[in-house]
Amino acid sequence: MGRVTVRRPVLRLRDGSPTQRPDTLAAEEPMEIRVGGRPLTVTMRTPGDDFDLAAGFLVSEGVLHHAEQLAAIRYCAGATADGGNTYNVVDVALAPGVAAPDASLERNFYTTSSCGLCGKASLDAVRTTAAWTVAEDPLRTTPEVLATLPDRLRAAQRVFDTTGGLHAAGLFTATGELIAAREDVGRHNAVDKVIGHALRQGLLPLRDTILMVSGRASFELVQKAVMAGLPLLAAVSAPSSLAADLAADSGLTLVGFLRGTSMNVYSGAERLTLGE
Amino acid sequence: MGRVTVRRPVLRLRDGSPTQRPDTLAAEEPMEIRVGGRPLTVTMRTPGDDFDLAAGFLVSEGVLHHAEQLAAIRYCAGATADGGNTYNVVDVALAPGVAAPDASLERNFYTTSSCGLCGKASLDAVRTTAAWTVAEDPLRTTPEVLATLPDRLRAAQRVFDTTGGLHAAGLFTATGELIAAREDVGRHNAVDKVIGHALRQGLLPLRDTILMVSGRASFELVQKAVMAGLPLLAAVSAPSSLAADLAADSGLTLVGFLRGTSMNVYSGAERLTLGE
Repeated sequence: MGRVTVRRPVLRLRDGSPTQRPDTLAAEEPMEIRVGGRPLTVTMRTPGDDFDLAAGFLVSEGVLHHAEQLAAIRYCAGATADGGNTYNVVDVALAPGVAAPDASLERNFYTTSSCGLCGKASLDAVRTTAAWTVAEDPLRTTPEVLATLPDRLRAAQRVFDTTGGLHAAGLFTATGELIAAREDVGRHNAVDKVIGHALRQGLLPLRDTILMVSGRASFELVQKAVMAGLPLLAAVSAPSSLAADLAADSGLTLVGFLRGTSMNVYSGAERLTLGE
Repeated sequence: MGRVTVRRPVLRLRDGSPTQRPDTLAAEEPMEIRVGGRPLTVTMRTPGDDFDLAAGFLVSEGVLHHAEQLAAIRYCAGATADGGNTYNVVDVALAPGVAAPDASLERNFYTTSSCGLCGKASLDAVRTTAAWTVAEDPLRTTPEVLATLPDRLRAAQRVFDTTGGLHAAGLFTATGELIAAREDVGRHNAVDKVIGHALRQGLLPLRDTILMVSGRASFELVQKAVMAGLPLLAAVSAPSSLAADLAADSGLTLVGFLRGTSMNVYSGAERLTLGE
């Protein structure tokens, strides 16, 4: 493995002056996820924590909820013409009795309601697929704790500093202690990686836990948090309208623009204890 | 339409002081793209320029290369239980003789080479799918022109300033004149929207043209540039390893970390005229 970063020659221009030097780039490679030998999806990801990524993807899609539902994960040898292993094809064996996902999963996910296709259908789909509810989660934290998370997540990012090209996702306790952090060129992959790690450690549902992400909060990231039973998602940048709608609909606390001691709370503000 | 932004109540915390006020969020809604009435994919996007998005998606996937291949695009009424129109389902009618895309497009796209699944297979897939080569494109520009593009793109972003939540993509001439700009919560959608606009205007292949994007340059964005015949992609942030590989393999000029008069050139530096 060891392909998380790659060295490439680059021409640097600074105020018109060129210099030639090697640069370190975040690695990106395709990865195919198979379930029981059947191809399910291909994602472009940064190699590393691939089994976490595969497990977390299946949590997000509603296939896995507990570690016992996962029999094994392995790299597929023999995927190449010469029988070699590219370490880009991962096969997940489900435990007996666990239903395999529908190959047309993605399309179906958004179209299970009578509206045909709309934001509300997407919210309904999450509600009917989620194994847990997060609305009653007892998590309580403070703005002061949240304010420490961006720096703590950044400190856990080993690769970002050398490439500037990776997103990060981190799981934290209510008092701000880091549980796990993962990096990827794709933010959705970084989130799947921490959730897959948690599944494999027997930590699902992630009650009383905070998910912190670099960048923005899309519908997809809130959906992944709900599917993992996470009660609070904090993001450095803006949420979308549908992310805020799904958070409110699910009883999840959504924090955006978390920068220093400044932040916006879009839903679930009762979990934040103010003025202490 | 008019759903590009949405107002939501938000609790703002500044140094521990809470204030309740309305906030403007970038809208996100699912959109299904159909071809000849058959569902092809669902993407989460910001409503607006939906026909450009559908057309550009089909350019990126190698289905469309010229405006004449596109017979019509329309919203599907009757997609809901009460026969209404959510403006989230778009049907593309291809001209007679144009081959409809394979429904399993995405999975096949990365797996057409003998390696099974690897970065090289992804490069090979683009090479065999692209209708044009960009290696011989005569575009010449200067670092001074490139340095002006981030501000020009930002000036064309009507929605970002109110939400902070939208990516942008812009097409520019070699002298830095704006041809078109589009915004979306998803960077890949913003790129598909400008490319789809160009297709519908009869501008493909986009010879002698520059594509500027907010954020990072992934493999997928370089692929979209190559499929549209674009010779230069400039990004505000870092490229991935596979983005740099595909750019070098295709003869595309890839510029990253474009900030002020500082930038990194990962391939195709011969298109930049220095020291004038």
